[in-house]
Amino acid sequence: MKIIVQKFGGTSVAGLDRMLTIRRKVLAALEKGYKAMVVLSAMAGETNRLIELGRQFSKTPAAAEMDVLMTTGEQASVALFAMLLHDAGVKARSVLGHQAEITTDCMFGKARIMSINTKKLRNMLLEYDVLVVAGFQGVSCHGRLTTLGRGGSDTTGVALAAALDADVCEIYTDVKGVYTTDPNMCSTARKLDRISYDEMLEFSSMGAKVLQIRSVEFAKKYNVPVRVRSTFCDDPGTLVTQEDELMEDVLVSGIAYDKDQCRITVFNVMDCPGVAAAIFSPIADAGILVDMIVQNTSRDGRTDMTFTISRTNLEKTLEILARDNKDIGAVEVQHDLNVCKVSVIGVGMRNHLGVASMMFTCLRNENINILMISTSEIKITCLIEEKYLELAVRALHDAFGLDSPGGDRVC
Amino acid sequence: MKIIVQKFGGTSVAGLDRMLTIRRKVLAALEKGYKAMVVLSAMAGETNRLIELGRQFSKTPAAAEMDVLMTTGEQASVALFAMLLHDAGVKARSVLGHQAEITTDCMFGKARIMSINTKKLRNMLLEYDVLVVAGFQGVSCHGRLTTLGRGGSDTTGVALAAALDADVCEIYTDVKGVYTTDPNMCSTARKLDRISYDEMLEFSSMGAKVLQIRSVEFAKKYNVPVRVRSTFCDDPGTLVTQEDELMEDVLVSGIAYDKDQCRITVFNVMDCPGVAAAIFSPIADAGILVDMIVQNTSRDGRTDMTFTISRTNLEKTLEILARDNKDIGAVEVQHDLNVCKVSVIGVGMRNHLGVASMMFTCLRNENINILMISTSEIKITCLIEEKYLELAVRALHDAFGLDSPGGDRVC
Repeated sequence: MKIIVQKFGGTSVAGLDRMLTIRRKVLAALEKGYKAMVVLSAMAGETNRLIELGRQFSKTPAAAEMDVLMTTGEQASVALFAMLLHDAGVKARSVLGHQAEITTDCMFGKARIMSINTKKLRNMLLEYDVLVVAGFQGVSCHGRLTTLGRGGSDTTGVALAAALDADVCEIYTDVKGVYTTDPNMCSTARKLDRISYDEMLEFSSMGAKVLQIRSVEFAKKYNVPVRVRSTFCDDPGTLVTQEDELMEDVLVSGIAYDKDQCRITVFNVMDCPGVAAAIFSPIADAGILVDMIVQNTSRDGRTDMTFTISRTNLEKTLEILARDNKDIGAVEVQHDLNVCKVSVIGVGMRNHLGVASMMFTCLRNENINILMISTSEIKITCLIEEKYLELAVRALHDAFGLDSPGGDRVC
Repeated sequence: MKIIVQKFGGTSVAGLDRMLTIRRKVLAALEKGYKAMVVLSAMAGETNRLIELGRQFSKTPAAAEMDVLMTTGEQASVALFAMLLHDAGVKARSVLGHQAEITTDCMFGKARIMSINTKKLRNMLLEYDVLVVAGFQGVSCHGRLTTLGRGGSDTTGVALAAALDADVCEIYTDVKGVYTTDPNMCSTARKLDRISYDEMLEFSSMGAKVLQIRSVEFAKKYNVPVRVRSTFCDDPGTLVTQEDELMEDVLVSGIAYDKDQCRITVFNVMDCPGVAAAIFSPIADAGILVDMIVQNTSRDGRTDMTFTISRTNLEKTLEILARDNKDIGAVEVQHDLNVCKVSVIGVGMRNHLGVASMMFTCLRNENINILMISTSEIKITCLIEEKYLELAVRALHDAFGLDSPGGDRVC
């Protein structure tokens, strides 16, 4: 049995016309001899409508009940699409998360998939040519409905592909694929034919919102090649896959950025064991993700600690720091909202030197001051003033030759 | 454990304000020491919106997929109401049809309940004070979602009360209870304190749309006393219960009517064994319900056959009769849309003579011609011209003294 997984997002199922478009994609797959698992999101806008409805009824709605409410969105999508397939003479049925036995943990609102009843799904595929599976939803081991968090339908698609050992996994969206950088910011941005899981993870976490980050982790873990492509054209899109030698020849794959950054500096903290824990543990306990962290060399037994967080968490973080001030022994806390992150990403960095200095040189040439730096094996990130963001992205895109395939300049 | 079942219909859950009203009803039950099973319908208008949505996608949507679509309505209601209960500090959770294991047959769109997992529900009631159960929905033995047909939430409520041996079963609606006749038609109509299951069945089938007919059958079968009452006032409503001696003292409980009637006469059919079957079997096969049937005494080996059907089925029925004309040997088929049914109903008839003649006399006094008559043990029905309907209802209501409790005139 040749199996294809096709996942379509909210804009792809928003209304009858769009659903007729995706029906053509499914029919084309059937003609090629595939059995299809079609994973659908809720119609565009529906998820937000349901969140709004829930908030209208309760200021602090229980996550478990929000999930019961939210899952109605995908449930409607799969029923309607199954009807459209019937009308085209296709043997199809809808499958909800609990029917597929997509079992998750009990973290309502952001549950993780633990297992899928592949035997049941394979039996269904013997009877039906298309299973229209509700994305984003699962069922806890206690039988309660759960959801996988924003963009969770991507994870549903990849998890089904992994569980059923599908031959193809296609994630359809409203963009052609993964770009070297944001095309809205840089006119020479180029669609990538291939990208490694690790690079994609860096892109996702930086807000290049093509794939839910967890779905990429899933794809990497189970080695599922994922093709990201557009619902609205026939472009082959971008293949997200295992790193190979060809990829390593390319120095840098793309430039990512994140505007949702806020820098906080805690001045003059005691430089002694445990001070970092004293600062960051209460913040982590409050569910706030700290991104970059820099600690300067100490003077007179005291140092400055600088870190970045998402802007929505600023108020809460300042409260925590004010409360814990005595324990930390800090003199002053400052924050800056006019900052952003820009990163160069590429698995090629592992084998090539000089990417960092090329990045720093490029920024210097544009007179852009670097506020913070952090590095990983395949990424270099600089925090800069927000007003320079577009300039920095375009300059770096040009400096690393990303406008032409294979044309990356070697350091 | 004292258990109360409270079912609220679409108008009772239509929006936040209404839901706050029904929350007060639930909190009052908790104060009395009950554990509550609250059964909810979809918000008023939602079911029709979903039907419309389904039809927009497919002219002949598969019933199984329509059910997947439809059940989202109740699912949203129970999630939202559970949130409201949490906000009032109540230990509550939503329970969907498949979670309660309300197992039905596979007749999508009009499924019948086969069993309920009472052990599971009782265990949930140990943990929670209120279970907010989605009405109208179940799950087939193959694990597919089903719905119980229009008004099916009533049946969910009664079935849960029966299965859990509840102490009280309340069906909340937008009227105060069951009336002696339609108050919109007869200003002296009076709310009944009690009514027997059999009488209620006759009322339901005549379009007094207070309770889904199947829920009354269920209540009768399992002897569940059902209190029908209004969400919007504190009136104790009407208790639908087993017949008792007190009820039998009352000659007539009420006057029902049905405007959705159409009379068809097949003239001059052969009066021989099998002719009735030849006429009615194809009609029944087409899913058309024939209501009253009258066969005149034959002359010269031929007879006239008259029957009534719902007006929506007229065209189809005439087609069937035209097709089968030769087999039946009929000369002519006539139909009349300007007719309606009026009935007097009462378990007291079983023991009292003269109800029929009193009805006929009353209609004669108003110069209303009777077109057809049919009788059952507890009901006498006359087909009359539609223009006389209001007059007939008011005259009969008056003739049987229904305006004053216990004041029925004895024949």
